[in-house]
Amino acid sequence: MSEHGKTPVTVLGLGAMGTALVEALLTAGHPVTVWNRTASRTEAVAAKGASVASTVSEALAADTNAIVLACLLDYDSVHEVLDPVAAELAGRQLINLTNGTPGQAREMSAWAEELGAAYLDGGIMAVPPMIGTPAAFIFYSGSGTVFGRARTALETFGGVNYLGADPGLAPLHDIALLSGMYGYFVGVIQAYALVGSAGIKAREFAPLLRGWLDAMGGFLERSAEQIDDGDYVTDVVSNIEMQAAAFPNLAKAAADQGISAELLTPLQPLMDKRVADGHGAEDLIGVIELLKK
Amino acid sequence: MSEHGKTPVTVLGLGAMGTALVEALLTAGHPVTVWNRTASRTEAVAAKGASVASTVSEALAADTNAIVLACLLDYDSVHEVLDPVAAELAGRQLINLTNGTPGQAREMSAWAEELGAAYLDGGIMAVPPMIGTPAAFIFYSGSGTVFGRARTALETFGGVNYLGADPGLAPLHDIALLSGMYGYFVGVIQAYALVGSAGIKAREFAPLLRGWLDAMGGFLERSAEQIDDGDYVTDVVSNIEMQAAAFPNLAKAAADQGISAELLTPLQPLMDKRVADGHGAEDLIGVIELLKK
Repeated sequence: MSEHGKTPVTVLGLGAMGTALVEALLTAGHPVTVWNRTASRTEAVAAKGASVASTVSEALAADTNAIVLACLLDYDSVHEVLDPVAAELAGRQLINLTNGTPGQAREMSAWAEELGAAYLDGGIMAVPPMIGTPAAFIFYSGSGTVFGRARTALETFGGVNYLGADPGLAPLHDIALLSGMYGYFVGVIQAYALVGSAGIKAREFAPLLRGWLDAMGGFLERSAEQIDDGDYVTDVVSNIEMQAAAFPNLAKAAADQGISAELLTPLQPLMDKRVADGHGAEDLIGVIELLKK
Repeated sequence: MSEHGKTPVTVLGLGAMGTALVEALLTAGHPVTVWNRTASRTEAVAAKGASVASTVSEALAADTNAIVLACLLDYDSVHEVLDPVAAELAGRQLINLTNGTPGQAREMSAWAEELGAAYLDGGIMAVPPMIGTPAAFIFYSGSGTVFGRARTALETFGGVNYLGADPGLAPLHDIALLSGMYGYFVGVIQAYALVGSAGIKAREFAPLLRGWLDAMGGFLERSAEQIDDGDYVTDVVSNIEMQAAAFPNLAKAAADQGISAELLTPLQPLMDKRVADGHGAEDLIGVIELLKK
């Protein structure tokens, strides 16, 4: 804590997201030091009270008590920025809010630990304009000590959700939700493409589609129980054999309308395999077993 | 209308769905004649008041004023059942609630018209247990005359939605919503598979995932405007170039966790093509243009 009870933070990286994070910290009165490869990007936050360092070393030395927060393009960029100053990281607390995978987070955590630094990973479920509002939430995982000390500062960004000591958990949750979003996106785009091919406005179809997908929440909850219990037999609404048999209609209907069904076709072989494996009377959700390699 | 002001209906096909439809009609007091290839399936509805015909011809002749409603396995089955009695369809009103594609519905409508029959197609957005409740809704398209006369009977099944004279519209809407559902399903299953690989219970993750996907309704509405306006430039939250660059993380993260990402990978080439075509600063939803063949 600084003399004002505010945690000092040194932020590396002033892309759109890094800048939004710095602004949230400054608004809440946290002392902030910034560094960015392109120095011109520091001007706006300097005008709002951030101290500007011209090198990473200088940024780390500015306040050795400060938490070091990296928000860069990718994990390779984090290594490019931090590898040259590795010796200066001993005893420091490092938070990495760069987008990556669970494996990358675990690798970086091990690397930091070897240097004597404590590491917390984060996955940001928001776009920059949402930072500083309750709509933004961020998953954290890794060092509970770093999380505890940084918590007040992190709360300036939006909702916080600490998932545990495995540093891979935050990016895993991040990517699981993104995967859910892309699936939703695939369904929406395919639906709009189909009705659009018959001259129906997307605006006109949107309320129907939204009502239909909102009603899928029940499926989401029921599926969770089936997956946890490993029981795809009970609670079968429409069995996978019937669904696998009717599924070619999706591609046929799309073809009738001059629309590609390529985004959905990968489901067919999985459904067929479940049926061939003797699970035809079970629920569709059982295809999850085939994703495990 | 019958003497009681109830529309007589002759139902061909007593699978789970056909049976549910007959029960809804009988409950509301409509006179119903049934035929099914496997005669034993007629017993339960006969006990509830349906007249049973032992051949399709006999079913058609039982009440020449009755609407003929087919609910069979697929359109081939409808032709198998009706082709031999084609001559008896002149002047009749035919409703087909069998699952199929827009092309199949248009073909069957043309076939019926040539025989002097009026044709209404329907797409049922429900499983059999939902029939007779407001949760079931059915799209109809084709002859407005048939729809008008049958409306009271059709309302016994659940919500009715008449889409217009093109008989392909009902199956098209049906398949568009199903495509939306399968996309949603793909996202949910991928998300559960990812967190499950780290030992996280689906039940535990479900509220997060549901909250996240429920919040996608705004994306669905915004996308509709972008599609109708053919403008993927304004209202860009996170541009497709950034998303295409980060997308490989989904497969990499899945691989880290021993999970296949095959259900989502078809998005990558479409995103890359939009970027290569100069649309990198636009919204992701623009990939819809690449589905048009």
